[in-house]
Amino acid sequence: MSALEKTLENIDSHLDESLDRLFTLLRMQSISTDPAYKDACREAGQYLVDTLNGVGFDASLRNTPGHPMVVAHHDGPADAPHVLFYGHYDVQPVDPIDLWDTPPFEPTMVEENGTKRFYCRGSSDDKGQLMTFVEACRGWKEATGELPCKVTILFEGEEESGSPSLEPFLDAAAEELKCNIALVCDTSMWDADTPAITTALRGMASDEVTIHAASRDLHSGYYGGAAQNPIHILSKILAELHDDSGAVTLEGFYDGVEETPDDIKQMWDGLGFSAAEFLGSIGLSMPSGEANRSVLEQTWARPTAEVNGITGGYTGEGFKTVIAAQASAKVSFRLVGTQDPHKVAAAFRKHVEERLPEDCTASFVSHGRNPATQLDYNLPELKKAAAALTEEWGKSAAIIAGGGSIPIVGNFKRQLGMDSLLIGFALADDAIHSPNEKYELKSFHKGIRSWARVLQALAQ
Amino acid sequence: MSALEKTLENIDSHLDESLDRLFTLLRMQSISTDPAYKDACREAGQYLVDTLNGVGFDASLRNTPGHPMVVAHHDGPADAPHVLFYGHYDVQPVDPIDLWDTPPFEPTMVEENGTKRFYCRGSSDDKGQLMTFVEACRGWKEATGELPCKVTILFEGEEESGSPSLEPFLDAAAEELKCNIALVCDTSMWDADTPAITTALRGMASDEVTIHAASRDLHSGYYGGAAQNPIHILSKILAELHDDSGAVTLEGFYDGVEETPDDIKQMWDGLGFSAAEFLGSIGLSMPSGEANRSVLEQTWARPTAEVNGITGGYTGEGFKTVIAAQASAKVSFRLVGTQDPHKVAAAFRKHVEERLPEDCTASFVSHGRNPATQLDYNLPELKKAAAALTEEWGKSAAIIAGGGSIPIVGNFKRQLGMDSLLIGFALADDAIHSPNEKYELKSFHKGIRSWARVLQALAQ
Repeated sequence: MSALEKTLENIDSHLDESLDRLFTLLRMQSISTDPAYKDACREAGQYLVDTLNGVGFDASLRNTPGHPMVVAHHDGPADAPHVLFYGHYDVQPVDPIDLWDTPPFEPTMVEENGTKRFYCRGSSDDKGQLMTFVEACRGWKEATGELPCKVTILFEGEEESGSPSLEPFLDAAAEELKCNIALVCDTSMWDADTPAITTALRGMASDEVTIHAASRDLHSGYYGGAAQNPIHILSKILAELHDDSGAVTLEGFYDGVEETPDDIKQMWDGLGFSAAEFLGSIGLSMPSGEANRSVLEQTWARPTAEVNGITGGYTGEGFKTVIAAQASAKVSFRLVGTQDPHKVAAAFRKHVEERLPEDCTASFVSHGRNPATQLDYNLPELKKAAAALTEEWGKSAAIIAGGGSIPIVGNFKRQLGMDSLLIGFALADDAIHSPNEKYELKSFHKGIRSWARVLQALAQ
Repeated sequence: MSALEKTLENIDSHLDESLDRLFTLLRMQSISTDPAYKDACREAGQYLVDTLNGVGFDASLRNTPGHPMVVAHHDGPADAPHVLFYGHYDVQPVDPIDLWDTPPFEPTMVEENGTKRFYCRGSSDDKGQLMTFVEACRGWKEATGELPCKVTILFEGEEESGSPSLEPFLDAAAEELKCNIALVCDTSMWDADTPAITTALRGMASDEVTIHAASRDLHSGYYGGAAQNPIHILSKILAELHDDSGAVTLEGFYDGVEETPDDIKQMWDGLGFSAAEFLGSIGLSMPSGEANRSVLEQTWARPTAEVNGITGGYTGEGFKTVIAAQASAKVSFRLVGTQDPHKVAAAFRKHVEERLPEDCTASFVSHGRNPATQLDYNLPELKKAAAALTEEWGKSAAIIAGGGSIPIVGNFKRQLGMDSLLIGFALADDAIHSPNEKYELKSFHKGIRSWARVLQALAQ
């Protein structure tokens, strides 16, 4: 029996213990964006340190101005490549909590239509995914006493809140973290049977804008008709972010956006993607974005402007006849090609400032600036990893793009000169960032087996 | 010494006790719009019942499907008129609570620039005001053993939440409550030295609209560019409520709106109103509503559309890249002349429905429909009350209009066939509906004295 075969057998026979370790991690309420969960974030980081030390890594917690990093090292054969694996242990908030069918932080395994899956915040994004790699390393170690590559692991705890500590940390630890290639497990399969490697990701620029008018909240009877209403101003500003064709109106917004090459479009056409199913699964029937673009183009290759949150005035039960002193919105721009996130953010702020009437001012808070990324289709590691995934799943790995932003890929390229292979086992209906987030048991199990194979393939 | 002189002397010498009784009422957290404060509303109603019984009224609490009514009766001379006094014991919510300088439900007397005033939610709107009448009755009773008019009192506990129980209650108790005229203390002075009687009030139609798109909250990376964003739809709907001149765009909105007669405009011009001071006191410099209208016209004689609250998506700390499943806004229309609130609300709903794209739906909740009201300038009771106020304040009472809505006035007219005299002692800077609501000690003291005089004047 080969070393890989022994490893896969070990993984299969210890799956329940792997799940137990993941469930312990899932119970930790590591919501990074909310300061109330600071201790829970540290607890999750420390648990990963302990777990990795248990596997045989040299792991430690590294403090940052925000939530701590987990860094771990394990040696490998002298001629083997050195890979850096990245994941994040922080999770999204759980509101609206009344839409959850099970407690958000209690992993709950259910069998639905013959398929086992477990519900929990972070089950898919990203605790379930990062543990596939940890458990693959454990399988290798338990079965063979060694790893096929040199492995460094970096887990961060601020991915869901803009990663403010990441860039300074990578600069400071560049020598320690620089490897031949980075492996990232934070993306999806093409479908439940088809593994995928994501080679392009949208970037993001995000801002919070607040419109200020009167010096205090006003009674709409006394002042209505004469006093500025900042919700009206904000509504107009946001309504004018798109034109009637769905295109974004910001000045210079499409600088750096190129048309998708025909051969790439053809490859995407061959994936058998159904826009009707994709939208149908979320209760929609029509693509709503830029006119005359396919849904895959809209979500993979075109930039967007989205309002992610808005609030102003009285929003509680009942009614209050108030004219608010201020109103605010959280706005994000998904970026492609070589769009400059700083220029896009500046164009947004100009768009706001130009629409401010007398007596109104705007204030802004940046929540991140990350350019898009694009991998070279001819990278040898891409071919090796694709072959390993094809072997595990019995179906050709799809080479796809992604609509989300994983800023770490840009950081690794810019700061450490490394390419990243984005291999993940999530499914589109995992409801990440939503109530009832889940992860398939099959994703977890075959995800572990996939990483065991990828490590072997990269070592060849 | 005349009966009135004895009464005024009694009022002056017992002011501290009057204040104590008001402060007890102010401490009761009777926020009617929030079900959490149901018991506090009842407590405030019961306290008023006990207080009125203490004065010599026959008072009782009357249950409704919502918060209870207080009804009290006191006899008067055989040939005297019968007046109905109305006020409301419920108050607005207190958020944003961190903008209060003193605890919102702890009345706090301060002396600022030589002027004594007390801060508390409800101090001006409407507990402080309604107690001026109660204490005037107490003064008459303690000084003379009787009241100059027959007096019925009605206090409701749902004025700040759309008065859902009022209309059925007035229908059921019509015989008991029908009087010669109604007196309402829920309006403002013209300025700190000039008493006022408000003869016109804007009506209101208010709706809560929710735009629904996808069946759940979505990750803006996976779905952004293809999925409908209900915040975008809502922003566009709200932005298009007004045209560039500040006029409301709803179909038929201005039906029933007449130009203010020239003689009324001249009377208003004579009031010495300063738009710069009015707006300057709330941090603004320019009227923002309909172009080419004075601020008094904008707030007294013109209808408005105001968004009083908006919410959708992630509004907590930090950032969440979500496309919300729904977004909602609370919208109110202030009405004048003979505008039909039902037609206005229907036109708003049509405005929304016409702007809904494929896959989006809208749901609505009505928060009230009340037409505007206008008193006959030649009403004898108006002249008598104005003379009494002029006597007390040493300055001619101003006959003005009001921008707010006091639906009870329309109910009294339609259901009980009664006109209402709106006499109040609030000031424009009382910050009603806002943090740091206050009432001037002078408003309270001279308000009590004013009602003592008005009761005497109406009895002549």
